[in-house]
Amino acid sequence: MSDHVYKLMEITGSSTISMEDAVQKAVNRSARTVHNMRWFEVTNIRGHIDEGEVRHWQVTVKIGFTLD
Amino acid sequence: MSDHVYKLMEITGSSTISMEDAVQKAVNRSARTVHNMRWFEVTNIRGHIDEGEVRHWQVTVKIGFTLD
Amino acid sequence: MSDHVYKLMEITGSSTISMEDAVQKAVNRSARTVHNMRWFEVTNIRGHIDEGEVRHWQVTVKIGFTLD
Amino acid sequence: MSDHVYKLMEITGSSTISMEDAVQKAVNRSARTVHNMRWFEVTNIRGHIDEGEVRHWQVTVKIGFTLD
Amino acid sequence: MSDHVYKLMEITGSSTISMEDAVQKAVNRSARTVHNMRWFEVTNIRGHIDEGEVRHWQVTVKIGFTLD
Amino acid sequence: MSDHVYKLMEITGSSTISMEDAVQKAVNRSARTVHNMRWFEVTNIRGHIDEGEVRHWQVTVKIGFTLD
Amino acid sequence: MSDHVYKLMEITGSSTISMEDAVQKAVNRSARTVHNMRWFEVTNIRGHIDEGEVRHWQVTVKIGFTLD
Amino acid sequence: MSDHVYKLMEITGSSTISMEDAVQKAVNRSARTVHNMRWFEVTNIRGHIDEGEVRHWQVTVKIGFTLD
Amino acid sequence: MSDHVYKLMEITGSSTISMEDAVQKAVNRSARTVHNMRWFEVTNIRGHIDEGEVRHWQVTVKIGFTLD
Amino acid sequence: MSDHVYKLMEITGSSTISMEDAVQKAVNRSARTVHNMRWFEVTNIRGHIDEGEVRHWQVTVKIGFTLD
Amino acid sequence: MSDHVYKLMEITGSSTISMEDAVQKAVNRSARTVHNMRWFEVTNIRGHIDEGEVRHWQVTVKIGFTLD
Amino acid sequence: MSDHVYKLMEITGSSTISMEDAVQKAVNRSARTVHNMRWFEVTNIRGHIDEGEVRHWQVTVKIGFTLD
Repeated sequence: MSDHVYKLMEITGSSTISMEDAVQKAVNRSARTVHNMRWFEVTNIRGHIDEGEVRHWQVTVKIGFTLD
Repeated sequence: MSDHVYKLMEITGSSTISMEDAVQKAVNRSARTVHNMRWFEVTNIRGHIDEGEVRHWQVTVKIGFTLD
Repeated sequence: MSDHVYKLMEITGSSTISMEDAVQKAVNRSARTVHNMRWFEVTNIRGHIDEGEVRHWQVTVKIGFTLD
Repeated sequence: MSDHVYKLMEITGSSTISMEDAVQKAVNRSARTVHNMRWFEVTNIRGHIDEGEVRHWQVTVKIGFTLD
Repeated sequence: MSDHVYKLMEITGSSTISMEDAVQKAVNRSARTVHNMRWFEVTNIRGHIDEGEVRHWQVTVKIGFTLD
Repeated sequence: MSDHVYKLMEITGSSTISMEDAVQKAVNRSARTVHNMRWFEVTNIRGHIDEGEVRHWQVTVKIGFTLD
Repeated sequence: MSDHVYKLMEITGSSTISMEDAVQKAVNRSARTVHNMRWFEVTNIRGHIDEGEVRHWQVTVKIGFTLD
Repeated sequence: MSDHVYKLMEITGSSTISMEDAVQKAVNRSARTVHNMRWFEVTNIRGHIDEGEVRHWQVTVKIGFTLD
Repeated sequence: MSDHVYKLMEITGSSTISMEDAVQKAVNRSARTVHNMRWFEVTNIRGHIDEGEVRHWQVTVKIGFTLD
Repeated sequence: MSDHVYKLMEITGSSTISMEDAVQKAVNRSARTVHNMRWFEVTNIRGHIDEGEVRHWQVTVKIGFTLD
Repeated sequence: MSDHVYKLMEITGSSTISMEDAVQKAVNRSARTVHNMRWFEVTNIRGHIDEGEVRHWQVTVKIGFTLD
Repeated sequence: MSDHVYKLMEITGSSTISMEDAVQKAVNRSARTVHNMRWFEVTNIRGHIDEGEVRHWQVTVKIGFTLD
């Protein structure tokens, strides 16, 4: 909580299972290259429909991470 | 991806189980009369409370479908 | 549905499990002191990330309850 | 309050008298072809001016109705 | 207009008559327990429909009152 | 409907009677100096409370008028 | 300008050429089944990219038409 | 870039040709009476439809100009 | 950061000095009756003008506090 | 507080010092030609950066003043 | 359409010709360093005015691209 | 002002002193790795409270910089 500076990036994760899983996938993929992720905020929830069924949940999040 | 035209309709599904189930119910009911649904976007998440418990999730989606 | 008056309060629930559970926790905690809760609307979905994993879902809801 | 599905349609009513009358006209006209209308939400209030006087109130509402 | 501090609360009034009456009912009910109310701002206008007629106007207001 | 250019101005009217009267007062006052007013859109509805009663309705409108 | 009632529908047109052409295509396709269209408002401008070039403009419009 | 003060005005231009032309017409007309216009921001894109064709593009812009 | 529940309240502080001072006054006054305040978010910045000078800064904040 | 009518104008002030100073400059400049200014609301906060330092604060305010 | 993760970046392109050209320039420039761009959404349309003429169209887009 | 392309990034600066200082810290930190920063826009103002006092101002800005 000292005078940190944070950067926000916007990521869309997709999942066939749930909204939570789509967010988790966005966070997991980001973790490969970004460290010190601290929080996220959902900015959009969409999805694809095929043959009358929801096939993918697509959740967009802004992720905040600490700049060292 | 050619020069398609899409129509959007706004549907509210409700479920006692989860937000995802409320969306799925909205899509399933729409599939009875509308074909070629392609995507949805969540525009509102509400619900009813009874005796201190969440009883229904009500999720409103805009659904896009192709006009032939 | 007669000429009722409702008050809205804004509550943030958090959960390690799901968005629905975060809302349910917000509603359950409010039920300790507020009666006649009738509906809620989700106004914000956020969360905390630790070591590349979502640790908490934080969902803010406006809850409407009847003023007697 | 069971697992109903609702459709929303957006209608603009106009009236020379009042905002309430414009909404009522939108609802009355819709009742000719749509049954089971349950609620509305005002999304826009506009009007026309002629010779320095308000001539028409134009109120747009989203109307929700039950899909059987 | 000195260094006052104000609190805002959000109240929904309903009326079978008009939008203004719904706001007035929200204010009157609030006056039973809150003093020094100073202003309001309309944040939402909704209503219920029954048998093709508007039955209730539901107007939500944020009411500001002085903290002594 | 030819290639007209319109200017928009934002005016707040107040009334002790109703929202419609507040708009009408805003339009009437503007008519003293502006001609060719064509339409308005409501952008804000507020008011003052005194002794637990609504004393003034304050409605802000954007008014469009033709530039000759 | 008498007491007309209008319905709004939301349509997405797409074009490889321009935003205006995408709107025109949305309007043209709608004209096959809807008469008395009067105005539109752009609510979203998107598009697809392929191999570093914009391939489609997708413009969503709300179209208002008179209910007889 | 010194301590300038700017005024913003909101203007709607219309054109039968394109969105860009509608903006240009708004700017050209304003130039008759306002000097030192510096930038604009598009706040609304609408239009009129007649016999199933777009007849006018109506683009609203906020124009900023330097107060001397 | 365990499964806490937070309540949000909306408070307007005013100050003749600065925006920061207006926020600080809102927080200080709230501290008389509310404990465990954790964060705030600015939702509105307004002020009063008298004789061509800014006399009061009025800053509205949503304040979140832990419910035990 | 009688049945006044107010006009709103939108002004951007800039300052090298602070946000408050930018607002004050907008108000001071406006006072040269407009009397009876009563309140303002901040609608945008921007600024210029040069060589990695904030050089100007640019704050846009809507200013309301009484029409006599 | 499998479980892809997308990143969004926000780019402003400028053009002396048209809005479409400004978007195309934003996309072209981005293609130098980013691959797999899939879609864009327009978030802002602005421009510069000089001597009473529009000199530059500045269109801001959010561009989504696949993270491998 | 030629056909430049700009990229926007979103950064949150925090400060124990003031909102301006939080923005300045966000800009200073960004200057370590990004050149040609040109402007910023404030998108969010938040802060932390501890023991009834504001401890940190957290201001989020979108920063635009030229892509060479």
